[in-house]
Amino acid sequence: MWPHDQGEHVARVVVDVMLKPEILDPQGQAILGALPRLGFDGVTSVRQGKHFELEVADGTAEETVRTIAETLLANPVIEDFTVRGA
Amino acid sequence: MWPHDQGEHVARVVVDVMLKPEILDPQGQAILGALPRLGFDGVTSVRQGKHFELEVADGTAEETVRTIAETLLANPVIEDFTVRGA
Repeated sequence: MWPHDQGEHVARVVVDVMLKPEILDPQGQAILGALPRLGFDGVTSVRQGKHFELEVADGTAEETVRTIAETLLANPVIEDFTVRGA
Repeated sequence: MWPHDQGEHVARVVVDVMLKPEILDPQGQAILGALPRLGFDGVTSVRQGKHFELEVADGTAEETVRTIAETLLANPVIEDFTVRGA
């Protein structure tokens, strides 16, 4: 859901950036390996990515935020991203 | 929404970890500073956090994932986290 016309001056937008599924994620692997040692069973996969919370001027187009995401927040060669209103 | 009884063997869970609002976020500040130089106006705040996607055995309690988050994924002294089904 893209934030529109909420009568506020800023809109909150969330961008999540994850390594593409075929790219190895050593940070996630390290967490996955640590869990049983800490006594947590039942977790079969962990992938770590980045989470951005932006405040943008009301009326900013989703396309603008997608351009920001692919220019500055994500590396589209190895990462996927999602953009949504918060 | 917590994933329950979906007839699958694993459930996907998302944990988002953000610095508490009163903690300075230099990575977010760096991005915020770079945006106007790249020609993007209208963004008034950027905060960067971590995004985790976990696959857990069906029937794993939300409380278990919250314990994992506060033990291993977040530092509760300086970070807040949210847990949700994906």
